Amino acid sequence: MSLNYKTADWKSEKHVPVIDCPDSVSGEFAVTVTVGKEIAHPNTVEHHIRWIRLYFTPEEGLPVEIACFDFSAHGEGGALTSSTGSATVTLEKSGTFTATSYCNLHGLWESSKAVTVG
Amino acid sequence: MSLNYKTADWKSEKHVPVIDCPDSVSGEFAVTVTVGKEIAHPNTVEHHIRWIRLYFTPEEGLPVEIACFDFSAHGEGGALTSSTGSATVTLEKSGTFTATSYCNLHGLWESSKAVTVG
Amino acid sequence: MSLNYKTADWKSEKHVPVIDCPDSVSGEFAVTVTVGKEIAHPNTVEHHIRWIRLYFTPEEGLPVEIACFDFSAHGEGGALTSSTGSATVTLEKSGTFTATSYCNLHGLWESSKAVTVG
Amino acid sequence: MSLNYKTADWKSEKHVPVIDCPDSVSGEFAVTVTVGKEIAHPNTVEHHIRWIRLYFTPEEGLPVEIACFDFSAHGEGGALTSSTGSATVTLEKSGTFTATSYCNLHGLWESSKAVTVG
Repeated sequence: MSLNYKTADWKSEKHVPVIDCPDSVSGEFAVTVTVGKEIAHPNTVEHHIRWIRLYFTPEEGLPVEIACFDFSAHGEGGALTSSTGSATVTLEKSGTFTATSYCNLHGLWESSKAVTVG
Repeated sequence: MSLNYKTADWKSEKHVPVIDCPDSVSGEFAVTVTVGKEIAHPNTVEHHIRWIRLYFTPEEGLPVEIACFDFSAHGEGGALTSSTGSATVTLEKSGTFTATSYCNLHGLWESSKAVTVG
Repeated sequence: MSLNYKTADWKSEKHVPVIDCPDSVSGEFAVTVTVGKEIAHPNTVEHHIRWIRLYFTPEEGLPVEIACFDFSAHGEGGALTSSTGSATVTLEKSGTFTATSYCNLHGLWESSKAVTVG
Repeated sequence: MSLNYKTADWKSEKHVPVIDCPDSVSGEFAVTVTVGKEIAHPNTVEHHIRWIRLYFTPEEGLPVEIACFDFSAHGEGGALTSSTGSATVTLEKSGTFTATSYCNLHGLWESSKAVTVG
């Protein structure tokens, strides 16, 4: 049985990770991943987004892990980590970013975005 | 685009994670996950298994993350971490374990195993 | 300000990670790390051990990360991951293992164990 | 033996993580952590910064994990993840951020920065 990664429109479903970066890139660029961009997700010890992981699949290639963001604090010590993170990336080839996210109560979610290196 | 998790017979394809635990469980039990159980995988800084992650999907439920094992040392300081790890787990319901693994050169792999709580 | 890693006798303080492996090793060997070996630690979404990380410092060398164990399930989907994990390791030189652990309410803890390669 | 977290002036030592955020905060704010801010660190499979982890210690409190950033790609598939990441954080109390970073060849490094909630 394959893992069930759900997907949906992030504007109406708060669990879906959103990938923000230019459509066309060259050199170093920023990638921001966010769960709850339009509709905020709860952030409590009982119910929270634990992480977002970012992959890149070059055209005609295999997925490469780019970054993992753990959102560790959900109220402990009065601290909250929101479910968004940014990394800085360089790509040699065009391909597709895929972000996966995990809610401790509602499982695994996925979205993707194509990028052209030009 | 969904992430491409490859699968195959672990006896002939060295990348496939193997899940070892009883078929029928009650109370606390050990789960061992291994990449390269039959055919060893390289373990060098250039080519290695970086992690195995273990999920459990209860019947009629969503996936829950059980454990992540990072195999961090690939020769640095004369140390090697093999691509196997064990966790200790308790389940209330029957369902399916799924292990995913990541090779820095050959991407994502997946396998699963059903367990009955009785 | 340095991070406050607390230490204590694991037989009387439940947060201290315990490192179990032979005192003298050669070839591949198992290392098990456990929080709550003598006195169980709670395992609930509100209060749990989130991870144990294992390092090795060769004599006259710098610390190398060996493994990270994330204990991800604290009741979600009826699943519990206990705060113990095992890795398989090879060392070229004698030195010291150090385990660090994290309780979401009671912070960072540390212990260590010398190993001789012979 | 405690883990040896080294520290130094980040303007002259490329391994030291730098924490960028306002000195005085209220509500949600961004924290950026960077290794190699002044002097770039190598980013190859043989020699790279693997992660930065961010903690917050409230005054008279224990450390809380805020975020972990894994920089996963060091050339695989033509992709590079630079050793910088950003999180979004809310704090109730004043205290100190501490960032720890790990170089696969040169071990563990640490720095900290006080923040006032006002």
